[in-house]
Parts: sequence; structure tokens; C-alpha cells
Amino acid sequence: MDELHTVYYFLDLAGTFAFAISGATAAKESKLDLFGVLVIAFLASCGGGIIRDICIGAIPPAGLTTWYYLGAAIIATGLTIGFYPIVQQIKRPVLLFDAVGLSIFAVTGAQKALSFGLNGEAAVLLGIITAVGGGVLRDILLGRVPVILQKEIYASAALVGALIMVVGNYIQFLDNNWISIIALSVCFTFRILSLQYRWNLPSV
Amino acid sequence: MDELHTVYYFLDLAGTFAFAISGATAAKESKLDLFGVLVIAFLASCGGGIIRDICIGAIPPAGLTTWYYLGAAIIATGLTIGFYPIVQQIKRPVLLFDAVGLSIFAVTGAQKALSFGLNGEAAVLLGIITAVGGGVLRDILLGRVPVILQKEIYASAALVGALIMVVGNYIQFLDNNWISIIALSVCFTFRILSLQYRWNLPSV
Amino acid sequence: MDELHTVYYFLDLAGTFAFAISGATAAKESKLDLFGVLVIAFLASCGGGIIRDICIGAIPPAGLTTWYYLGAAIIATGLTIGFYPIVQQIKRPVLLFDAVGLSIFAVTGAQKALSFGLNGEAAVLLGIITAVGGGVLRDILLGRVPVILQKEIYASAALVGALIMVVGNYIQFLDNNWISIIALSVCFTFRILSLQYRWNLPSV
Repeated sequence: MDELHTVYYFLDLAGTFAFAISGATAAKESKLDLFGVLVIAFLASCGGGIIRDICIGAIPPAGLTTWYYLGAAIIATGLTIGFYPIVQQIKRPVLLFDAVGLSIFAVTGAQKALSFGLNGEAAVLLGIITAVGGGVLRDILLGRVPVILQKEIYASAALVGALIMVVGNYIQFLDNNWISIIALSVCFTFRILSLQYRWNLPSV
Repeated sequence: MDELHTVYYFLDLAGTFAFAISGATAAKESKLDLFGVLVIAFLASCGGGIIRDICIGAIPPAGLTTWYYLGAAIIATGLTIGFYPIVQQIKRPVLLFDAVGLSIFAVTGAQKALSFGLNGEAAVLLGIITAVGGGVLRDILLGRVPVILQKEIYASAALVGALIMVVGNYIQFLDNNWISIIALSVCFTFRILSLQYRWNLPSV
Repeated sequence: MDELHTVYYFLDLAGTFAFAISGATAAKESKLDLFGVLVIAFLASCGGGIIRDICIGAIPPAGLTTWYYLGAAIIATGLTIGFYPIVQQIKRPVLLFDAVGLSIFAVTGAQKALSFGLNGEAAVLLGIITAVGGGVLRDILLGRVPVILQKEIYASAALVGALIMVVGNYIQFLDNNWISIIALSVCFTFRILSLQYRWNLPSV
């Protein structure tokens, strides 16, 4: 299934780009300078993967050595600064891509942890960290309480995706490619439905 | 002294649980959602150990692979949300367990760093980081200046415990088990006395 | 060129000390206690290098095992608390040393990443992280949006220094010692000129 990997490659790119846009937009609204916007865009898209790679011993972290992650951050910064009205208009597609990124980061993050020999619990945790770590770093650097801790079904969707991947990997009811497709689809659907119907976890 | 390790195991559990309660309580007071409370409870109890393990090369970090750390965070979250009046009533016992956690994390953190071949300076620093790192992460994520940097003899107690462990390990005036018991007791007593008599470091 | 390494050793010390002073001063102004000031001073001077070492697999991080980094933080804390009027008077020399630290951390950070086999992109990123990571940690712990993301040519100077080092290392137009001297001088001059003439990146 080499086509699957090509598809995943493009999903990963789309997700990375959406995360970078979310970072650049938030940074611009906080009145950072050019460099600050670039840093936040980069960390929002790669921060989660960098933390995951440090935790599983994949040194150096892929986020630092892969040119297209940095490229996505640079393009997102340029777009957000130069064509802000356009970025505002594409808010809905960006939310869509963001859900793509959430799903693919959660599922491939859990997969990578498993392939490095970590146990199921760690793989689920690292799937979530991969998916939401960038957004958390973005919010910490902008001096805000991370939005994913406050409301919206976001990290919970990542949890579901990573969990399906890990459980499927243990009981092997299908081959891993199919399991990843299912995990990805459920996570994506769950996120999109929660956006559509404004589902939130209870504030406690 | 296998009994000692059993005792330490239970002290570690008690401390982890107290840290998780402190995290869940602080998160609840900041109006996070269910998932947010769980994340803060988990990081408050395991964050310090995860940073230590990354710094000494103990990959994957024990905090991510040990089920009862996550279990403690889940139970603490459930208790804090479902039985908040009870959690408020056990505030004093929680402070006691928190002092237990502080002591055992400082001493075993320094020990683990030594056993991975780090020098004394690094072992003392990592003992402190193990003991206070979780609380610092909790406060950063909640958008507060970490309380341990502002007042109370807290990190200083961890410093004393880690220092006794490391110095004792070098001069070997006793075997390591006894040294750890002394380090733990001094750290614990120091913390409890500072709570009782409201000792603070000078604000500068 | 053993003399060069002696010179670099002293530049590194001067820069570390200046970073520690900046951390201690900021912490004092935020009314932290004695221990809190020490922690911020230490992290401001070593935090960037620790993150770099974790990312390249240089375990344990040099910042935790090298006594004179901790020593610089302790002396800076003592000076800032005990002789605050003096520290205020030496604000301009501290800015000068800070520019020294910025340059040498950016250049040697990139060098260390290259010597651990990382590619050029990662080396540039890690040079910047080494130079500005400590200041970012300082600001996060004090609950501020990192000042380097907001204004001033600071991280940009680090980028220039790290970039010259990495590009020079690839095309080898000179031996590495000379390249590092050029990278260091350009970064330092760029930073000092931007201070003198109040250059800023555009706020976006």
C-alpha cells in the first residue's frame, strides 16, 4: 500500500500547514514581530512531534531536520502577514485541515511510539501529545491558558484516534494500515461533528 | 532490605497521588474542562520525573509507561470533580502526603541520576527538578507564576534532601539505604516545620 | 589554535554570566524569593543549551554537569540581591556581555549540533535555540510573553550567526575556526548596532 503512504504524506503536509496557520494567526493577534510570528507558527506545527521524538528517543527530532516543516511555517507566516484578509476568509477550510492534522498526528504519533517499542499506555499518551503539544506550546508562549484544556472536544478526539490505533495494533483484527485508516476517520469525524454541533466537555 | 523498597513504593504512590490532587484542584479552580483537569493532574504528578528521565537518558520516561501514575491522575481527577467537598476537607492530609511526595521524589530523583552515572551537581539539580518540576508545569499551564518560586520553603527542602543523598553517596558514611532514609526524613521534617511555623525564604 | 579555545571559554563565561544577571534582575523585579531568583538566573543562562543538548542527544546536558554554569547563576543572584544599585549601574556593560553571550551561544550551539551529525537546518535552528532558549524560559516562568518574540533584533542576530557558521561549514571557504570568528563578529556587530540605533523587526 505505497499509495497509502503518499496519501498520509499529503495529509501530514496539510495538517502541518493548518497548525502553522493557527500559530501564525494567534501570534499576529498578539502583536508579535515577524520573527515571533515565525517561531509560534513553527512550534505550533512541530512542537508536539518534537516532544514525542524526545520522549521516545528519536534523536534528532524529525521536526528539526525535515525541511518542509520549516517551509510550512515560513509560508504560513508569509500568508498570514501579507494576506491576512485571505487567511480570515479561509478560516473554515483551515478548521477542516486542522482536524486533518489532529487526526493524522494522533494516529501516526501513536504508531511511531509503538514502532520504537513503547507500551500501549505510552503510545496513547504520545499520540495525544503529538496532536495537541504544538497548540499547547503556542498558547504558553502567548501567555494564555491552553485553549484545549478549557473547552471543545479536541484532545478527546486525539485520545480516541490514538486509542483505536493502539488497541487495534494489539488485537490485530485487521492489518495496521486499515486500523490506521479507521482510527484516523473516527478521530476526524468526531472532531468535525463536535465543531458542527458545538459539543464541549463539561467544565468542572 | 526488600521491605524498604516496598515502603518506598507506597510512599511514591502516596506522593504521586497528593501531587495529582494538587494539580486537579488547581485546574478545577481555573475552570478547565474534564480533560484539562486530567492533563494538569497527570503533569503535576509525573512532569518532574519525565523531565528528569529525559535529561538522564532514561528513555522512555517512566511517567509515560507506568500505569499507576496515570491511574493516580485519573482517580485524583474523579475525586476532585465528583467529591470536591471531601477533597477540601482532606486538605491537611493532602499537604502531608504532598510533603511525603516532595521528599521521596527529591531523594529517589537524585539516586536515579547517580545510578545513571551523572555527577553530584547534576544529581542534586535533578533531585530538585523531580520534586518541583510537576508543580512548575502545573502553574505554567494555568498561566500563573510558579508558586514555588515565590514563597515557602519547598524547593529548598528538596535541595536539602537531594544534597544529603548525594553527599552521603560520596562519603559513604553509611550504606545507601540508610542515607536515603536520613535524607528523606530531614527533607520531610524541614517541609512540615516550615508549614507549621510559616517559614519563608526572604522575598528579594 | 588552542588560544582560540581559551578565548571562547572566557567569552562563554562572560555570556553565561550576563544571561544569569538578566534572569536574576527580571526575577527580582517580579518579587520572587531567594530560591526563585536563583532558578530563573540558572535557567536564563543554561536553559537554551539544555534544550539543545536534549535535542541532539548530548546526555546528560552540559548545563547540568558543568559547575561554573551553576556558579555563575549563584554569583549573579548574590550580586543582584546584595548589590542591586551596582547591578543597575552596570546595565550597559551587561547589555554588552549579553550580546557576547548571544553571539557565542548561537555560533557554538550550531557547531555542536553539526558535530553531533545533525543537518544544516537543524544546526541553524539549534543555534538560535541555544542563544534565545534561556530568555524564553525566563519569561515563561515569570508569566510574560517572551520579549524576544515581540521586538528587537535579537533572535534575528542569532539566526545570522548560526547561518554563517553552517553555510561556512558546508562550503569550507576557510577553516572552521575562522568561520566561527566571522560568524561571531557579524552576530555581535548586528546586535550592538540594533541596540545603538534601536532597530526593530516590524510588528505585524
